[in-house]
Amino acid sequence: MSNSFGRLFRFTTWGESHGEAIGCVIDGVPAQIPLCEADIQYWLNRRKPGQSKFTTQRQESDSVKILSGVFEGVTTGTALSLLIENEDQRSKDYGDIAQKYRPGHADYTYQMKYGVRDYRGGGRSSARETAMRVAAGAVARKILDKAGISVRGAMVQMGATVIDRAAWDWEITEQNPFWCPDAKTAAIWEAELLAIRKSGSSIGAVIEVQAQGVPVGLGEPIYGKLDADIAAAMMSINAVKGVEIGDGFAAANLQGEQNADCMRMENGQVVFQSNHAGGILGGISSGQPIITRFVVKPTSSLLIPVETVDKDGNNTIIITKGRHDPCVGIRAVPVGEAMLACVLADHYLLYKAYQG
Amino acid sequence: MSNSFGRLFRFTTWGESHGEAIGCVIDGVPAQIPLCEADIQYWLNRRKPGQSKFTTQRQESDSVKILSGVFEGVTTGTALSLLIENEDQRSKDYGDIAQKYRPGHADYTYQMKYGVRDYRGGGRSSARETAMRVAAGAVARKILDKAGISVRGAMVQMGATVIDRAAWDWEITEQNPFWCPDAKTAAIWEAELLAIRKSGSSIGAVIEVQAQGVPVGLGEPIYGKLDADIAAAMMSINAVKGVEIGDGFAAANLQGEQNADCMRMENGQVVFQSNHAGGILGGISSGQPIITRFVVKPTSSLLIPVETVDKDGNNTIIITKGRHDPCVGIRAVPVGEAMLACVLADHYLLYKAYQG
Amino acid sequence: MSNSFGRLFRFTTWGESHGEAIGCVIDGVPAQIPLCEADIQYWLNRRKPGQSKFTTQRQESDSVKILSGVFEGVTTGTALSLLIENEDQRSKDYGDIAQKYRPGHADYTYQMKYGVRDYRGGGRSSARETAMRVAAGAVARKILDKAGISVRGAMVQMGATVIDRAAWDWEITEQNPFWCPDAKTAAIWEAELLAIRKSGSSIGAVIEVQAQGVPVGLGEPIYGKLDADIAAAMMSINAVKGVEIGDGFAAANLQGEQNADCMRMENGQVVFQSNHAGGILGGISSGQPIITRFVVKPTSSLLIPVETVDKDGNNTIIITKGRHDPCVGIRAVPVGEAMLACVLADHYLLYKAYQG
Amino acid sequence: MSNSFGRLFRFTTWGESHGEAIGCVIDGVPAQIPLCEADIQYWLNRRKPGQSKFTTQRQESDSVKILSGVFEGVTTGTALSLLIENEDQRSKDYGDIAQKYRPGHADYTYQMKYGVRDYRGGGRSSARETAMRVAAGAVARKILDKAGISVRGAMVQMGATVIDRAAWDWEITEQNPFWCPDAKTAAIWEAELLAIRKSGSSIGAVIEVQAQGVPVGLGEPIYGKLDADIAAAMMSINAVKGVEIGDGFAAANLQGEQNADCMRMENGQVVFQSNHAGGILGGISSGQPIITRFVVKPTSSLLIPVETVDKDGNNTIIITKGRHDPCVGIRAVPVGEAMLACVLADHYLLYKAYQG
Repeated sequence: MSNSFGRLFRFTTWGESHGEAIGCVIDGVPAQIPLCEADIQYWLNRRKPGQSKFTTQRQESDSVKILSGVFEGVTTGTALSLLIENEDQRSKDYGDIAQKYRPGHADYTYQMKYGVRDYRGGGRSSARETAMRVAAGAVARKILDKAGISVRGAMVQMGATVIDRAAWDWEITEQNPFWCPDAKTAAIWEAELLAIRKSGSSIGAVIEVQAQGVPVGLGEPIYGKLDADIAAAMMSINAVKGVEIGDGFAAANLQGEQNADCMRMENGQVVFQSNHAGGILGGISSGQPIITRFVVKPTSSLLIPVETVDKDGNNTIIITKGRHDPCVGIRAVPVGEAMLACVLADHYLLYKAYQG
Repeated sequence: MSNSFGRLFRFTTWGESHGEAIGCVIDGVPAQIPLCEADIQYWLNRRKPGQSKFTTQRQESDSVKILSGVFEGVTTGTALSLLIENEDQRSKDYGDIAQKYRPGHADYTYQMKYGVRDYRGGGRSSARETAMRVAAGAVARKILDKAGISVRGAMVQMGATVIDRAAWDWEITEQNPFWCPDAKTAAIWEAELLAIRKSGSSIGAVIEVQAQGVPVGLGEPIYGKLDADIAAAMMSINAVKGVEIGDGFAAANLQGEQNADCMRMENGQVVFQSNHAGGILGGISSGQPIITRFVVKPTSSLLIPVETVDKDGNNTIIITKGRHDPCVGIRAVPVGEAMLACVLADHYLLYKAYQG
Repeated sequence: MSNSFGRLFRFTTWGESHGEAIGCVIDGVPAQIPLCEADIQYWLNRRKPGQSKFTTQRQESDSVKILSGVFEGVTTGTALSLLIENEDQRSKDYGDIAQKYRPGHADYTYQMKYGVRDYRGGGRSSARETAMRVAAGAVARKILDKAGISVRGAMVQMGATVIDRAAWDWEITEQNPFWCPDAKTAAIWEAELLAIRKSGSSIGAVIEVQAQGVPVGLGEPIYGKLDADIAAAMMSINAVKGVEIGDGFAAANLQGEQNADCMRMENGQVVFQSNHAGGILGGISSGQPIITRFVVKPTSSLLIPVETVDKDGNNTIIITKGRHDPCVGIRAVPVGEAMLACVLADHYLLYKAYQG
Repeated sequence: MSNSFGRLFRFTTWGESHGEAIGCVIDGVPAQIPLCEADIQYWLNRRKPGQSKFTTQRQESDSVKILSGVFEGVTTGTALSLLIENEDQRSKDYGDIAQKYRPGHADYTYQMKYGVRDYRGGGRSSARETAMRVAAGAVARKILDKAGISVRGAMVQMGATVIDRAAWDWEITEQNPFWCPDAKTAAIWEAELLAIRKSGSSIGAVIEVQAQGVPVGLGEPIYGKLDADIAAAMMSINAVKGVEIGDGFAAANLQGEQNADCMRMENGQVVFQSNHAGGILGGISSGQPIITRFVVKPTSSLLIPVETVDKDGNNTIIITKGRHDPCVGIRAVPVGEAMLACVLADHYLLYKAYQG
């Protein structure tokens, strides 16, 4: 169950960073949805490495193949199998990460838990796995499209520099390599990240993902809460250390009347006067946009030496050569979008089960 | 599945705030664990309403009964059924909350989702449900005890006032009504919260929960991650809007070498030089203490009037009379502890399944 | 998970035969279904002990209480908690079954697995647990009613005596203590079972359960098959050793053209010419009646002495005194009906999730 | 969830009969188990088509590839991905089965449920899927090997001809194309099946699968019973219409004292005097061999014309040309073995979770 996510819309991923291929199986896709490889490839290309100078230069076309579950252009209701061959898995010297544990990585915990690990490029713990989340998310979006629900994300903080929310423009996110919704901040980040990359270091970031068009009533109370599922989804992404819904941690500072999203009738409709709750009340969507944020720690694959130990129990230092993302938050944007899409598709199906 | 939590250690809760009783069924408790009602009652008493002037004055003895699963003083490996009768469910006028939606509460979303809701005291969406989380947590602790794992929590922020972490003393948490680990901050909070209560308002808070003695290797990679399960557990608690592991959102500001928890050999043991990761790497426990925080929004059950609508679609205002907690974060401390205990017990059983 | 059944319509039972009470929690009941205790009691009364001289003389009123999930006469969509107090749990001498293992019972396997067992009346392994299956089935029937699906059962074989299927009359099942659909066979069984009871022995039986009005399309292919779920449901009932769908084991003897349920158009509708398949093809309902049978072994609670061993590893013999059913197949009829109702309710909700 | 089986040892299959490939993902395989493709291929070859004149002449090498989860010759504890390319998927005229529903097949129910179906060779509903069950079973056997548990099967009835159990010899099963444990019966079946094949018909069969070396204590009571899981596993195999444990339906005819497996102490060990129960009491393994049987209906892919309807609602007849198994029971033997191995591996891991 470690490699599966979801209840009714459920996907299972497999594959290691430098193995032969990666893939996923998606169960619970309704029948008769038009689907082809290009529909999925579009979203994969947004996460693909090598898109700008700010992401890893690993060259992968990340071409997805649909191996089952589609017939004559539509889904059949049976298991969808997707596969991407790993092209850039040239044999190389993995000596250092084979022997030493990178601080902040899963190297140590995998070795202790399993007594063996595929150290090549991080093996199963590599963020390469997130390509299949994006692929699953592309299929989830097909279900959401029919329901009028859309999902999009942006990077809202890099290091200490936070965007100007007043300047938020979704179109800007497509025009800079950071998915930054504010052109001025994008320019600042560019200078900052160049300096960080040059120094061989890395930096953390905060990503925000929003869903529009979510009807009131998605989510289950108590333990199957929509926000609990979103929290698990986001926290399961590599390097994520925190998740917020709506005002999140800022709600600690608020008094009750400040935090209350007051309600008014407008043209026979309930209209909320604010969205501190991020679109979820009691675990159930309120009809407002769903807003979630998550923080990504700076990768510890660094050109700067750090102290560690090796498999034989010796103190040593490690420098992680190779092609790394100085800010993994950038590529986490499409991944976060995909995970929110998957959670919503799952809850949308669940919602239908109990209606009518 | 909405009312169940966990995989191998799995509990299912039921009951409404002003119904006849609340309860839970716990499945997956290993056999031969000594267990009596007093073992559970001890933890329930820490969450019980009416413990200080800062929690609701509702009077409930919250006396738990074990109805099944224990024979001759030990667990039998079969389903444990726990029940608490609701004593303070005197018939009263629920008129206002029956007709109007409290902003920030689940009133509106439940009504829209189900077309009916038990409005008495919030019904199923009331935090009264969390008593059964604490009860389940008490049983989880029995499993953790055998494994040498302990769990404890503290309130670390109320409104804008954050504790002085340098002054952290676990014994202090038992000596003030806030589970505050720092006596000076406790005194400040007391003054602040008296003022808030007097004004009829409420305030948010941040709770930190830690686990000691967790061996390396608990957790599953990819989607069954220990941190993903903790995130879901905490986010499922009433009023929670954010969850962090280790440095959490502060990690956005860090560079890679600052965030790396360096490792050294000491007396033949791996010792981490810091714990930015909060004891979890790649979804698996590292052997360091597990550290998680969550934020609780201020309750919107207020004596201050706020704008809302009623069931018939009219604009109105609501004042929520009754006995409410001005800072629900206080009683969230034992609940957060319980949820972490349940997640760890579940992963501990899962860990054993794959070992040896 | 051992004590839960179902996916979307999911119930969890608890309680021991001679404990304080037994109960269940039902999750996934759609909101706004009218439900009261009498609705459930009706079905419980059909399973209740002491109904005739052919079932155990244990006196239990088996009065069910609804503790949560119903408000103002309708389900709220939240967890339903049902409870029956055990009345006839008078303290008595359990000496023999405390020390000795009844051959054919779970005494030995429980003791070996758990190292402890509640031996009083069989504890958790007692068929008393099936009362809660019937209660859950009563709620499932409410969901099925709305969908036009009904479920009913009959005993079709007792010992070597098989009913005359040509004489099948559902009304007859209500007029004899065996749920026998054929009056002549009922009379024969009466004589046979009196003799068996008198001899202190017991006898096996076969039960058939049918569902009418099941639309085409319920069930999931491959592993979530409708017939696989029915098989698990029936096999989980105490004493069941085999399950069939449609022709079942008789299909071994058939040639393909004999077994094919040919199809014809009649008034614009597909009409099957026979129902060898028992209403399920490829794991999915065909629109024909669903037909399943299961076999119940003779209980080994006997007044006839049988060889066994005791807890201390000595050879001994055991005679099981007390009030036992000479043919547990009789009371298995309402239990089998309930389990089929639960499986169908679960699949009906699942079906809705993927439609439209 | 329709395409997944198991809890802790859990596999998910995908692929259509005439699609590009079929495959499965296995989650929950413990680390450090030596595993290579040949280990799996050995078992696949036993199920492979074209092994004798009595199975389909479709030519597939069924060469399995391991795409993930193995590193340096051992399992890593991460998801295992297995893939078999479909070689014999030559483009051909599927006209008849595209337009008409084969009676007794899933054609009609798939079309009604999904509104679309991959009719090529039966698509997802083809027994080709069972190749991946055998592959998963091969991995399950690796877990069972370590626990000293072995699984083997035989065909025990074909049409009306039942084996002579007194002549049972496991070595004989490897020496005839029927997995028949009795040479005389094998010879009779050969003649009978030649005649059936010649007539263009098909015949049903009964398969028995046994597990040796199962310790006492596997299985969960009530709903996670070992026998309930076996029943679901077997019933989920294509064409299966019934499942028995131990004496199965024959238990209907027995009196309690005949059915009781009496127990004696021998050399300090509990020894059962018979095995009517098939090694399972109260859902938990007793330490005796586990014995299960299932019936496979005759395939309705026939050269004999049968009445049916087409997609446009016209009465018609159908003759299913192509290469079919006249007795699908033969190839069901390795599939049944694999499913029992998977159920036992799953319960073995579950058992370990709660021990110690």
